[in-house]
Amino acid sequence: MKKKETAERILGNLAQAVNNLQGCREFSPLMPEVRVNVVYALPGAASGKQVAAIDGRITVVRGYPHASGSPAWGASDHMSRLVIEARKYNVDINAGINFKCDTEIIKVVKKYSKDNKLVFGWIDRTREPAEVSAKDGSSMPWKIKQLVDQSGRLPDIFYEGDGWGKEPLFVILGIDAVSVVKTAIAIARKYKITKARAG
Amino acid sequence: MKKKETAERILGNLAQAVNNLQGCREFSPLMPEVRVNVVYALPGAASGKQVAAIDGRITVVRGYPHASGSPAWGASDHMSRLVIEARKYNVDINAGINFKCDTEIIKVVKKYSKDNKLVFGWIDRTREPAEVSAKDGSSMPWKIKQLVDQSGRLPDIFYEGDGWGKEPLFVILGIDAVSVVKTAIAIARKYKITKARAG
Amino acid sequence: MKKKETAERILGNLAQAVNNLQGCREFSPLMPEVRVNVVYALPGAASGKQVAAIDGRITVVRGYPHASGSPAWGASDHMSRLVIEARKYNVDINAGINFKCDTEIIKVVKKYSKDNKLVFGWIDRTREPAEVSAKDGSSMPWKIKQLVDQSGRLPDIFYEGDGWGKEPLFVILGIDAVSVVKTAIAIARKYKITKARAG
Amino acid sequence: MKKKETAERILGNLAQAVNNLQGCREFSPLMPEVRVNVVYALPGAASGKQVAAIDGRITVVRGYPHASGSPAWGASDHMSRLVIEARKYNVDINAGINFKCDTEIIKVVKKYSKDNKLVFGWIDRTREPAEVSAKDGSSMPWKIKQLVDQSGRLPDIFYEGDGWGKEPLFVILGIDAVSVVKTAIAIARKYKITKARAG
Repeated sequence: MKKKETAERILGNLAQAVNNLQGCREFSPLMPEVRVNVVYALPGAASGKQVAAIDGRITVVRGYPHASGSPAWGASDHMSRLVIEARKYNVDINAGINFKCDTEIIKVVKKYSKDNKLVFGWIDRTREPAEVSAKDGSSMPWKIKQLVDQSGRLPDIFYEGDGWGKEPLFVILGIDAVSVVKTAIAIARKYKITKARAG
Repeated sequence: MKKKETAERILGNLAQAVNNLQGCREFSPLMPEVRVNVVYALPGAASGKQVAAIDGRITVVRGYPHASGSPAWGASDHMSRLVIEARKYNVDINAGINFKCDTEIIKVVKKYSKDNKLVFGWIDRTREPAEVSAKDGSSMPWKIKQLVDQSGRLPDIFYEGDGWGKEPLFVILGIDAVSVVKTAIAIARKYKITKARAG
Repeated sequence: MKKKETAERILGNLAQAVNNLQGCREFSPLMPEVRVNVVYALPGAASGKQVAAIDGRITVVRGYPHASGSPAWGASDHMSRLVIEARKYNVDINAGINFKCDTEIIKVVKKYSKDNKLVFGWIDRTREPAEVSAKDGSSMPWKIKQLVDQSGRLPDIFYEGDGWGKEPLFVILGIDAVSVVKTAIAIARKYKITKARAG
Repeated sequence: MKKKETAERILGNLAQAVNNLQGCREFSPLMPEVRVNVVYALPGAASGKQVAAIDGRITVVRGYPHASGSPAWGASDHMSRLVIEARKYNVDINAGINFKCDTEIIKVVKKYSKDNKLVFGWIDRTREPAEVSAKDGSSMPWKIKQLVDQSGRLPDIFYEGDGWGKEPLFVILGIDAVSVVKTAIAIARKYKITKARAG
């Protein structure tokens, strides 16, 4: 019963987070090629089945962020493994969102992180040892360890630089889906202002 | 904080209920002209804003039940008022779902209700006094009172017969969205079996 | 080949019409309980399979008209039968859209029709003979004949008043889906202005 | 008028193609990280605005390919530039679809191409000169020229191998959207059989 309630709270927090994101047109320019997902893991989640995400990911339709399907268990692969791994270093991490990464966005996120006292990190995928990339499932532990070694703790927000066959991406980690989406929206608004000034 | 958790649990229960419904192709023949909504009210909800429902209702796409939008607060009018009114007679009622009503479906639901010891009711809209229909918002209290007077308690499942300008509809009431959808799915499966035998 | 091209043109005209409608927020207050469909019939269509419509109908999501599914053949029942019947009186009719009908909207549509020299009609469903309603499939011919008898020709726009178990509805008929949607959008904008003045 | 009809035919052919794809569950394992788009260019299209595609791309929801939005003009960037460039070498090319590329899929597509007398090609992105990658918009002409130089003509189907920050992808080119989707569906079915035998 307790477990059922926790699962419902997680699914509902994710639904609310996505509603918030869907109302934010400014987020659309941060849409990466691989699309966005928001994930929220059950306490002690050991596999993607125990992580809630948006079925079919979030894309942009008619200019607005748009959830393709419903919040559902097991609807994400990469982002759910990322949160499960991140939790090994910080038990308060339950949720994550990814978004586009380029040099302009990096500048905005760095400034936003500094202004809001968030720990900022990055992963240099060119430094990934060949034996790590070669072994299935060993990239994620290596990446998260890189981040922790670099900052002395798990960062609140970080990017993975381009990799071979991989689009660079930003990730925000946090306590729940509503809070990571809140940060993503704040960054999207800063980015819009920055672009408007530059344009 | 407590309130926020309750709201999240409700939204998540609704999301789970709709996922369950979307997986049930047998429900599609029970789609009424006005489409389906599933609603779940906050404790003490006084208006539709405090009732969660599916934005844009649930329709049929490619043969399956399909949620047009996301679970959201204030996304239903009729069904949310119905649950708020029903609760005055039974505080355990929090959620409801509507579906198609015709003579075939009435037979199936009556039998299902009997077999599962559910209280079955109906509203004869031809008996609605003119002064009730004329006054905005007074139909719902009249309808729910009719149901309670008839059965001595609020029924678990009932239909409203055709009205003037109104499609007849079935409604299931229950403790949460997952449970009313569970009953709707069970009825849909019985209906399919009945049709197959008849056909 | 010729036939394939015609079918594609129809599906594409419907897709374009729905894109136009989806961009028109002002249309949302005209959403009826039964939701909206836009239909476009093949030349000589004899059944609903030969009429294109939106799978799952058009609803309102996040405040905007929203197509639940894709333009597809056979995705409408009522509206496709209506267009097939209407064509018997005017071979130039290929498409139709329905929308909400109430006393306010009737006033706006009447004025719009007069200003734009459109023939306006209505169906009084209380005059439908019992033997017509009783016989499956005989309502539609009766309704369309009523309209033609009343105006001396098929109207461009008409409403069906409330019936027993039937929501009152407006229908626009026309040469293609883009043109009936264009009229619907123009009416929605007039309605918004009228409401704003009154409010 | 002629132009309007052509535009409608294209949008309708795209709508039909996507309906076909949405009905093919076997295509879901071919979904790449960047999601799928199907594009169809107007004759003489000079920019993406003159190419129809699916707004928000095609993803997988509840196990099936699912169009996030409607067929619309200007809804693709990469795939539309690809078709515009490809057309310089073969005026009969109007449409394209992309899908996932890995070593297993490459084997299946190679065999399928041979069995069906399709010209198969690939782009080795490691050979892309630095001055090409550095200059915005010069990658596409280089890639298509590579393909033509390799096969003596534009291939019917090809893959781009992994690039720096780029997922490897397959592309099918053809006369219209329905035909490229037909090939994609045939390949998806072959892939399923191959997996089943291997598994």
